[in-house]
Amino acid sequence: MSLNLQYEDIGKGFVQQYYSIFDDPANRANVVNFYSATDSFMTFEGHQIQGAPKILEKVQSLSFQKINRVITTVDSQPTFDGGVIINVLGRLQCDDDPPHAFSQLFVLKANAGTFFVAHDIFRLNIHNSA
Amino acid sequence: MSLNLQYEDIGKGFVQQYYSIFDDPANRANVVNFYSATDSFMTFEGHQIQGAPKILEKVQSLSFQKINRVITTVDSQPTFDGGVIINVLGRLQCDDDPPHAFSQLFVLKANAGTFFVAHDIFRLNIHNSA
Repeated sequence: MSLNLQYEDIGKGFVQQYYSIFDDPANRANVVNFYSATDSFMTFEGHQIQGAPKILEKVQSLSFQKINRVITTVDSQPTFDGGVIINVLGRLQCDDDPPHAFSQLFVLKANAGTFFVAHDIFRLNIHNSA
Repeated sequence: MSLNLQYEDIGKGFVQQYYSIFDDPANRANVVNFYSATDSFMTFEGHQIQGAPKILEKVQSLSFQKINRVITTVDSQPTFDGGVIINVLGRLQCDDDPPHAFSQLFVLKANAGTFFVAHDIFRLNIHNSA
């Protein structure tokens, strides 16, 4: 496989689709369909898990309902195995919590004409330093 | 190749080493040695470049001298081809500019017993939304 030159569109399309599912409490659990049963890694606020079943557990354990999210930037790069690396920066507000900046990294891996999320690292951008 | 279980140490060690070179104006150009002549992608504040020669040009074009940097979090994951994905959040101050939060993503690829930076995405975390 080689570079997928549609990486910009794939990145932006994925981000739009992923968050439209994740941010809808009635639909949120369906994000599990983006992950592989065994070959996906998620690091959520420093907590590392592997595989769709555990990722589903994590997503279902989140206590907030509504998310208001504003995307600031989406940067994508192609990988030499036909995948796409995506870095998202934005701000989100869960229910009535104060808004926070966040960053999320996705690595999409090509598989049988579609993509799955091989890597997902999410962090709220909370800095202790002044 | 398979998962490198030292990914946490590799990620933290790399970040420490990379920034100790990058943040030293006399030494900064040597970060080029982390990149491949052809197979490295860098996206710097949305500007995308490929290959060590162009990455060196970019690094040498940066106008600031001193960088004060505080790392907030380093999250790493292993890849199935023996590499490491690293997501860094922190704050930095260039010369006398105001300090900014930043995020930087690195994908290290294993090659002949060592690693090179295959992907590098850097963004200052500046949000227009309230």
